[in-house]
Order: sequence, then C-alpha cells, then structure tokens
Amino acid sequence: MKALQYVSIGQPPEVREVPTPEPGPGEVRLRITAAGACHSDSFVMGLSEEEYAAFGYPLPMTLGHEGVGVVDSLGEGATGVQVGDAVAVYGPRGCGRCHSCAQGFENYCPHAAGMGITPPGLGSDGAMAEYLIVSDPRLLVPIGELDPVKSVALTDAGLTPYHAIKGSLELLVPGSVAVVIGVGGLGHIAVQLLRSLTAATVIALDINEDKLDFAREVGAHHAFLSDGDAASKIAEAVGAGPVTAVFDFVTNEPVLKIIRSLSGPRTDLVLVGAGSVETSVGLLGQPFGSRIRAPYWGARPELIEVVELARTGQLDVETEQFSLDQGPEAYRKLHDGELRGRAVVVP
Amino acid sequence: MKALQYVSIGQPPEVREVPTPEPGPGEVRLRITAAGACHSDSFVMGLSEEEYAAFGYPLPMTLGHEGVGVVDSLGEGATGVQVGDAVAVYGPRGCGRCHSCAQGFENYCPHAAGMGITPPGLGSDGAMAEYLIVSDPRLLVPIGELDPVKSVALTDAGLTPYHAIKGSLELLVPGSVAVVIGVGGLGHIAVQLLRSLTAATVIALDINEDKLDFAREVGAHHAFLSDGDAASKIAEAVGAGPVTAVFDFVTNEPVLKIIRSLSGPRTDLVLVGAGSVETSVGLLGQPFGSRIRAPYWGARPELIEVVELARTGQLDVETEQFSLDQGPEAYRKLHDGELRGRAVVVP
Amino acid sequence: MKALQYVSIGQPPEVREVPTPEPGPGEVRLRITAAGACHSDSFVMGLSEEEYAAFGYPLPMTLGHEGVGVVDSLGEGATGVQVGDAVAVYGPRGCGRCHSCAQGFENYCPHAAGMGITPPGLGSDGAMAEYLIVSDPRLLVPIGELDPVKSVALTDAGLTPYHAIKGSLELLVPGSVAVVIGVGGLGHIAVQLLRSLTAATVIALDINEDKLDFAREVGAHHAFLSDGDAASKIAEAVGAGPVTAVFDFVTNEPVLKIIRSLSGPRTDLVLVGAGSVETSVGLLGQPFGSRIRAPYWGARPELIEVVELARTGQLDVETEQFSLDQGPEAYRKLHDGELRGRAVVVP
Amino acid sequence: MKALQYVSIGQPPEVREVPTPEPGPGEVRLRITAAGACHSDSFVMGLSEEEYAAFGYPLPMTLGHEGVGVVDSLGEGATGVQVGDAVAVYGPRGCGRCHSCAQGFENYCPHAAGMGITPPGLGSDGAMAEYLIVSDPRLLVPIGELDPVKSVALTDAGLTPYHAIKGSLELLVPGSVAVVIGVGGLGHIAVQLLRSLTAATVIALDINEDKLDFAREVGAHHAFLSDGDAASKIAEAVGAGPVTAVFDFVTNEPVLKIIRSLSGPRTDLVLVGAGSVETSVGLLGQPFGSRIRAPYWGARPELIEVVELARTGQLDVETEQFSLDQGPEAYRKLHDGELRGRAVVVP
Repeated sequence: MKALQYVSIGQPPEVREVPTPEPGPGEVRLRITAAGACHSDSFVMGLSEEEYAAFGYPLPMTLGHEGVGVVDSLGEGATGVQVGDAVAVYGPRGCGRCHSCAQGFENYCPHAAGMGITPPGLGSDGAMAEYLIVSDPRLLVPIGELDPVKSVALTDAGLTPYHAIKGSLELLVPGSVAVVIGVGGLGHIAVQLLRSLTAATVIALDINEDKLDFAREVGAHHAFLSDGDAASKIAEAVGAGPVTAVFDFVTNEPVLKIIRSLSGPRTDLVLVGAGSVETSVGLLGQPFGSRIRAPYWGARPELIEVVELARTGQLDVETEQFSLDQGPEAYRKLHDGELRGRAVVVP
Repeated sequence: MKALQYVSIGQPPEVREVPTPEPGPGEVRLRITAAGACHSDSFVMGLSEEEYAAFGYPLPMTLGHEGVGVVDSLGEGATGVQVGDAVAVYGPRGCGRCHSCAQGFENYCPHAAGMGITPPGLGSDGAMAEYLIVSDPRLLVPIGELDPVKSVALTDAGLTPYHAIKGSLELLVPGSVAVVIGVGGLGHIAVQLLRSLTAATVIALDINEDKLDFAREVGAHHAFLSDGDAASKIAEAVGAGPVTAVFDFVTNEPVLKIIRSLSGPRTDLVLVGAGSVETSVGLLGQPFGSRIRAPYWGARPELIEVVELARTGQLDVETEQFSLDQGPEAYRKLHDGELRGRAVVVP
Repeated sequence: MKALQYVSIGQPPEVREVPTPEPGPGEVRLRITAAGACHSDSFVMGLSEEEYAAFGYPLPMTLGHEGVGVVDSLGEGATGVQVGDAVAVYGPRGCGRCHSCAQGFENYCPHAAGMGITPPGLGSDGAMAEYLIVSDPRLLVPIGELDPVKSVALTDAGLTPYHAIKGSLELLVPGSVAVVIGVGGLGHIAVQLLRSLTAATVIALDINEDKLDFAREVGAHHAFLSDGDAASKIAEAVGAGPVTAVFDFVTNEPVLKIIRSLSGPRTDLVLVGAGSVETSVGLLGQPFGSRIRAPYWGARPELIEVVELARTGQLDVETEQFSLDQGPEAYRKLHDGELRGRAVVVP
Repeated sequence: MKALQYVSIGQPPEVREVPTPEPGPGEVRLRITAAGACHSDSFVMGLSEEEYAAFGYPLPMTLGHEGVGVVDSLGEGATGVQVGDAVAVYGPRGCGRCHSCAQGFENYCPHAAGMGITPPGLGSDGAMAEYLIVSDPRLLVPIGELDPVKSVALTDAGLTPYHAIKGSLELLVPGSVAVVIGVGGLGHIAVQLLRSLTAATVIALDINEDKLDFAREVGAHHAFLSDGDAASKIAEAVGAGPVTAVFDFVTNEPVLKIIRSLSGPRTDLVLVGAGSVETSVGLLGQPFGSRIRAPYWGARPELIEVVELARTGQLDVETEQFSLDQGPEAYRKLHDGELRGRAVVVP
C-alpha cells in the first residue's frame, strides 16, 4: 500500500510503498477514508536528530494521528465492530486498564510512555496510508453517514478544544465571557463549541484580520486583533472586569501578556497551544482563585460527544482536501500558514 | 474442574464436575482463589420457572459474580496482565465501547442486554469454580498482596455501596448526617466507606440489636433499632431537621416509611436493596429538592478505588469462609440470615 | 396604594386600597413596574379554608411572587442599591445565614418555615401592588434596561425550569435527548433554556396541538402529542433507547406513565409540576441509576444567570399584559387555560 | 476600649485606648473573646510606606482578621442573631449581591475593592480589640459551646486550607496521594483536613524536623524534609509516579522545584503561601492536564463546614494564648518563627 512517511530528519515527508499490514488477534484493520494533518506533525518534523531521538519515535514513520476509515478486516477475537462500519479513530493511547484509562482519560495514562504505547502517527505508524491497524475495537467511534473528510479533524482539532472547554464548563454560566485566542484549525472549532455548549459571550482574538472574519462567520460575538488594544476593546464590548475563561491556541509571550491583562478572580487560563512560556504564579503572582491549565487532547467519551455534535449539525469543520500524493504539499501549506481550516488527506 | 452450579429451578445449587474452559483470543483464564455469595444469587434462585426464563439465564449456570483469582492462561493477543498476577474481576458487563462504557460505567451500558452480554454468575458461568474465563483484561483489577478471601467481596459488596455513596458525596460535607439502613454484607461496608470518604456523622439502623453493635464496631457514630422511634432517636442524637442522605440496603415499606420521616429539603434517598416499593413523588409528593436514586453495582474506576481503600487498610470486610463443597451450605446460611458479614467460597 | 388581594376563601381576588408601606431599617421599597401571575397563586386560591389555614397564610394577602420594580425608597442602613435602580425580586425566602442560604439556595432553607419567613405573595404581601417592601437588598437583582413586562416572569417561570435543568446539566452532553412535558408558562422557557445551555436534542410533548407549534417556534427539535404514541414517535425521531432527562411541568398519572416508558439506565426524571403521583421506586422499581427529582424554584445566583440570559437575548418570554384593575381577569384566564405564555400585571 | 493597632510604618503594633464603637442600622457589635494573629498581618506590617499606601489601608488600623466573640449589641433592624450568641466572623468581604457573593464566594467578589469594602484588620478596624462592629449578621457563624481560643483560627488558618483542598476534592479519591508543604499554622490544619475529608495518603514536607513530628502527630502518613531527596523518599513510600495534589503553604523557588519534581499528568499544584514565583506554563511547560491554582481564603458556606468539623471533634488547632497587652509580643514570636501553631489574643 501507499503511505506518507517521515523518513529523514529535517526533510519533507515522502509517499512510499510499504507492506499492507495484517490485523493480529483482537486487532482491527481500517481502510482509511481520510486523515488529517496537524501542527504537531510539523512540530515533530521540525525536531533536531537529538530531540527526535529523545521522543523515541521510529524512522521511517507513517504520519497521521487523525484518521477515519471503514473496518476492512478483523483479527481473531476482535468484537464489537463489523466489516464495513465507518469509524473514527480515538488517537490517544493509554494502557486501557489504570484508573485514568478506566474513566476514558487515556490521554492522561501515566503508564503508556513507559510501556511503549504511542498514538498512531506519533510513535507508531499513522493514518496517512491506505490502511491502518488499530489495536482494540474500543478505540473506534462509529461515525455512520458523516462525511469522512468533514469528520476526520474531529479526532484532534475537534476533541482537543472540546476537552479544554469541558474543564471550564461549570464556570461558563450565562453572563460569562469566553475568549479564544488563535482562530486556526482548533480555534475556529473552539468558537463553535462554546456557542453550542454554553450561553457565554464568545470573543475571538487573532493577529490576522481574515481570521477575525472567519471567527465571526463561525459564531464569535466579537472578534478583535490580538494586540495591545485587545483588553480595552473587550472591556468596551462586554463591560469592564475580568473575563471568565481564556482558551489560548497560540501560547507565546505576547499572547500571555494579553491573557494576564484580561484575568481576575477565578479566571480560567487554558493553554492549549504547543508552547511553553515563563510567568509568575502563586497567591501574589496570579489572580486570586485563578487556574492555569494545560489540557492535552481528550478523553474517549469526549470523542463520542464531539462526533454527536457533528451528527446533529452543530459543528462544521473547515477543510482543504488533498490526495495522498499531495500529502507533502499539504504539510508545506500547513507549515507556511497558507491554510484556512484543516488539511485533510484522502488516500 | 469443580463448579457450584444452579441446576434445577427452586432446588439448592450443586457441586458438579464440568470441563475446564480454555481462553479464546483476547481472553484470560483465572484460577479462582475466592468467590463471594450474594443475596442477588439467592434472589435469582428464588425465581419461578417463568420469571427465570424472563431473565434469559441458562441452566445449569455456575454461580458467583464476585471473584478474585490468579491469571493462569492468556488467550492469543491478550495483553496487559501476566500469568501469576493476582486480580479481582470487575463484574458488570457492558459493550465496552458506548458513551457509558467509555467512562467506565459498564454497569449502565444500555446495549449489553440486547447484545446478550451478562456478568459472570448472572447469565454466564461465574466464579464459584476452579477456573473462570474473563473476556477482556480490562475487566481485571490488580490486588497485589491483598488476601483473596478478604478482598473478593470488594467487587460487589464493596463496590455497590461505594458507587451509591459517591453519587451523594458532594452533599456529605462536614456537618451532614448519613443514615445506613441494614447492617449486613453491604451495609457494614457502607458505614466504613462513609467514615473514610466523608466527615459526615454516620448513623446505622437495623432490626437486630447484634447488627447495631456490629455497626458501632465498624465505625457508626450512632446505631438505633429501625422502628417507629428511629426518627426521634436520630433527632435526639444529631439535632432536629432532615438528614442529608439515607442509604437503604433493605427497601421495603416499613423502611421507606422511616426514610420519609427523616427526609426534608434536598435529602438524598438512595435505595440499594433489591426491592421495589410504592411511594408518592413530585413537588407535592416528596421533599423539595430531594432525589430518589436507585444506583446499581458500580463503575470500573470505582472498583480500582475500592481496592485502594483495602490496600491502604481503610476497609475491612467481615467474612465467613467455605470450601466449594460447602457452597450449598453457604447459600443456605445466607438465605436464612445466619451469616455475619460475607460468605466466601474458596475452591 | 392599590393592591390586588386575596380576601375571601374561594372568591376571586379583589383590587383594594391599602396603606402604602414604609421601609424599615435595612429594607427597600420598590415601585412595582410589573408583577406575574402564576399557577401556584391559583393553587393557593383553590385551597379550602382548612387547607389555607394549614399553610398559615394571612387574609387578606396581596398576591404576586413574581415582581420587578424601581427602587423608590431606602430604609436606614440599606446599602448596595440606589433609588432609581431597576431590579427583579428574588422570590424564595430563607434565613440568609444557614449552610443552604450561604450558597444562595434560599429556596431550600430548612429554617424559614419555622421562623415565619415567607416569599412575597405566598405568606406575605406580594408584588401585585403599586409598592413592595423587600427585607434585604441582597434579594434584588439589577435588570438594567430590560423591559419589565418581558422580565418579570424570569423570577419564577424562568428561574424554576433553569434550576431544574441545571441539576441535570452534566448529563446533557452532546448526543443526549431532553424531553419537556407541558409547553406552558414554564415549559416554553424550558425549551429555550435547553437550547441555550446544552447541545441536547430537545423534544416537547403537550396534549394541545397549538402548544406543539409554540414549542417548535421557541426551538424544540421535535414536538409530539403526549399520548400513547409519544414513546414510539420519539424513538422514530432520535433512535430507540432511553432518553437522558425528562422535565415534567404537569405531573399526573398519565404523564408519569409516558415518562416511565421513555426511561432507562441513568435517566433523570425531573418533576416540576405542582402535583403528586404514586409510583414504584427502588432497584427493582425504577430504572438502574435513574433519579426522581423534585426541584423547587431556584437559587439566588441562578436568578442572576437567568437575567443574564435575557440580557444577552437568549430568552424570550411570551406575555399577555393586564392592568392592576384587570388583575382578577388575568387570574380567571390563567385558571381557564386561556393564556399563551405568562400573564403580567402592570400597576 | 483597648485595641491593638498598627500605628507607624515599620514599627511594632501598639495597644491603645480608642472609642468603643456603636452599631449602626443593620450592624452587630461583638464583644471579642479571641482574635488570631496571622502571617499576612506581618506581611502588611512589613510593607514600605509606598507599598502600604498602594493597599489603601488606613493608619492607625486595629489588627486582626480572625475573630470570634459574643453578640453584645444589635443595630436597628439587625436580625438573625441574638445578644449573647457566640459567633465566628467570616472575614472576606464582598459586595454581597453579585454572582460570586450570591454563591457565598465573597472572597472572590470582583467589586469589593472598587467599592472600598475590606476585611476587618485588612483595611478596616479588626478583631484585636475589646469590641468589633460587623456590618451584616450574615457574616456571623454560630459556634455554640466551642472554645473561643481553639476556634478563632478556623476563620482563616482553618478556612484557607479547607477551601484549597475542596477545589481538589474530586481528584483525591482512594489511592491518591496529597502532599502538604509547610507544617505551620495552616499546614498542620491541612493535614487534618485531608485525613477527615479524603481517603488519600497524606505526606508532609518541612525544612524543620520538629515540624515533621508535628505533622505525624496530627495525622500525616509520612513526613520528610523538603530537600533534594524529598521526591525519592516519596516514591519509596508510596510508589513511583506523580502525586495527585500538592498544597504548598510556602511558595518560593526551592519549594516550586520540589513540586515540579513530584508532578505529572493531572497533578493539582495548589499554591497557598503568600508568595510569587516564576515558572514555565503551557502544554510544553507544565505536565499534561495539570492545574496551577492560587486559591484565596474561603467561601461563607465553607466556614460553616469548618466550624462543623471542629464541633464534631475532627479538627484540633494548636494555639498559644496571649493577652491583648501581650499582642505585640505575639506578633514578634510569629515573625521570628518561634510559635508552634497559632497565636491567639484574648482581650
């Protein structure tokens, strides 16, 4: 079969011919109908040889941690799905048995790394191929009649902001204000999720005017440039006083400065972007009662909830479609910021 | 191997020789080190032919939905446990993949019944035998060095009150009052759980003076006969006013009458006994803000928590030990109310 | 001043001239701008002499537990509001100091009744008058520029379903199904609240076809007659299987029968109508893990949230306006079921 | 009356004769029976003239934000308490009417500062005097027969760790590990609270061996020096892997380094000490799913819960008693770290 693989450190990924895998006992083989390209893939392909080695990922490695497909072959003893079922792949990989995994939070399994268990495309062969082996049917969520291209990004670009928002949900009562920073693949979904799940007033910030229009199109009540005037524009729009929660999909120093200027008692600062920033914390270092959270991906039951949002028409993911052969080009556009919405590869 | 089976409607169970089962792909075979006898087994063996048929259970059926054992043989592709591991069996059986199961609430899976998925001993062959097949390693919770006889009842007599209490936990703040009705196999554990998990004042009620002593031994602050004076004795002990929660392990009319007399605004009425009672409900039929709940068994992560309570010495299950050959006698004593604590069969 | 008072048992209320009250220390006098008529007023006026005495209400008593007004005069030491402020009156009355009141749940204060503390219009003089005395500024929620007539019903017809729904909110995830029974003053708001606060599919039931149209207008995804076919129509619309929550604003036997036919594991049965029904409860008497709740009115912070929903345009209460002199006629139409939405009296 | 006042920047407080205050309408006067000395008083008295001015506190200012007393005189219209009632003073001061205050979280009121509303002893005259004026009876919690000296610290040294722990309670299931850093006035109460409220394993860290003994006396399962070996000793005691929550009552760089070494997926980092530290945050800067929280004081219903813990004998505050004249000496010992437990002044 054909697969889009990361082969050489620092080089673009390549489309290569590899053996079609067979499902072992309990495993499931999917014929992939769509796979999503994500900033974290770019992040991985931007690592130095030493850094990449520290992650312990193989080379070559088939890319793609967002995948949907059709069940194509069942290993011995695999139950719960049927050949022909259309399914989305739950990406995080835990041991499946510990306290965290038993609640469906396989994204926070403290044992997976030590056991060498990794998500597809982030340590094992991923979904950017004609076929994918999934180790357990429990990792598959039925998508029914949903369009594969429209659905595939639910598995990360949908699930990640969903999980981030869910952790703040009890704060986001009527009268609350939620700010989304960065209206890209994840951020434009965050705006929609906040509108579906809460009665909060939703404000989007971005450095790009086009993205502000995009945010308004998908439901933001207000959208402003993320510059030094952001705080005062927000105060003008919704009144002075701290915002309830900030969902930051960028995570760098200038953005953190804006976040701090919006924060007050009990503000939830939710940092989702793949970054790291220095800041002060503690009773005299952050607002009273505030929380700085760094949620990662999402839980298995949450993916079921995200798929239901799509199935009931409450979520629309903006996508740009590529063939497997165009996969390298998809990653180039992603890297260069030339995409609006999510790049989806259809093998 | 030997197994304790229910063979003929209305007759006592029998010890019989049956083929030793082999694990299929993905399955695990346990050598059973202890199995618990439960009132719900008695309930099932008390059904008429017609009622038993309605449950769709087979005959003969090996009894026992509480089991601990040692991993003895792994089916092809079964991972996550090793031969020799001491484990407890999570008894409820769900599809493993729906929204409820993905959160670990396999006890509330809405699909299991329709798919013919049943707990061991309650529709499939159970743990009262030398060996037990478990369909998936995720259903096994490691118990390490814990004594099998002391631990086996954690899987139901421990898990069921734990789950019941967990649903009221946010109400059981300091200053609250929790009432446990029926100090038997489940009730004496409920008293201990309430002491470990909350700062509530714990009151036990029973019709039997010996059980009141037992309740005090395991930590109840107060214990009273469950008669017409119960409400006034409770008021004398903790002050007038509604209690916070009642955990009822009996569930019949006289008990419900007591429960209603203790209830007021926001009281949680938690009915755990295998019964059904008529009562009035609605704004003018039950106290304002009260809830009448009927929790069933428990969730998979909750079993892990219960095992941790035992491992850290915060839970002690009173047991009476029997051999497999004495199994029928164990059920007779259970039925006749001659046990203190839990009957455990060691094959 | 003029006031609409209940004067004689079994007789319609009368408009009477009474002394204009003066605010004592810490109290606030409002000039009423709108007062709402509620089924519970009708319920009270339908009580026999004996029953009325049992409630301990005075005669005559000015009606009206829904009120909005403008601060008109401050008693000595009353702080936090200014003359001229437009405010809504939080109706439930608690002691203000106990554990329940300290969290804002004055609707569940266990001490109020014993202390003779009662809501306006339900034990004390109410809002159907030119002026109303409110005992503490904390009971006043600013409404700013909101239209008094549109807003007054938020204080009960808005707050009551809001509180009822809030107790089920964690169950109402995407993919869940919420059923509203009875599309009257409270039910048509419940439909809107469910749409604003959740991503659930919302189904309305009523015995009246016009009400089904009304339900669809305000946002119900589906609306069906509440007869013997309701369960099968719901299954057809959203798939077989139990619904997630039922909010019942009627509460009688036929309705309870429908509710039970829709219920399954973990269904929340929320009975809000002013009724009482007999039913079976317990592990074998109600669905596994289900809860039967009877919430009453709502909490003080919840009223603030409801006002915010109106302020942000997410809630529209259907009203019919009457003068104080037309007050008796408003109650007649309410009693005879001739209203669509809420009857509001403007003094 | 006599009062212990802060008079000159940088100088020790002085006992002075001041007019006995009279309660205005709605206010309550207490005869103080005990007042607690707190590190935050020392912090305030350590501010430079400029810093003190920035806080906007008056000079002279009677110290003491922890107070218990007996109701001595009621202003006109003050209801809900009786002369002679023994009460504790809820210290945080909010507007009493906003969304946060309506839930009892007056400690997070976003309006108080702007309205000039301040706690006693932190901006207004405090409890280190013979009499104290309290603006509203709702701020008084009955303590009944509790010993004033033993109880007064509940209002801050009890309430603050209680509130901090309550925010992590749902994580602290059986099998979890809670670490308390700093076993002083607040920390030794935190250990007791964790034992009463949870089944977690409790580990205390301090730089002082005596404090480790103290921690064990009040219930810590383990106690270690807070040095570079702390993490490995904890791993030895409870197994490798991240701890569930850390409650830090110190908050400085060396402590933060220890905290980070104990943290992993979903660890709750709760910084309660009056400090500020620089650290990295974000998805790549802190453990996946972790939260960095900075809770402040506590909510009004939480103080009621803390008082109930004392009333039911589940909390014992270590105290050292001083007369009002010895007040300056109490603060000196506090500043110099010569106290074990809490300094309490009895006027």
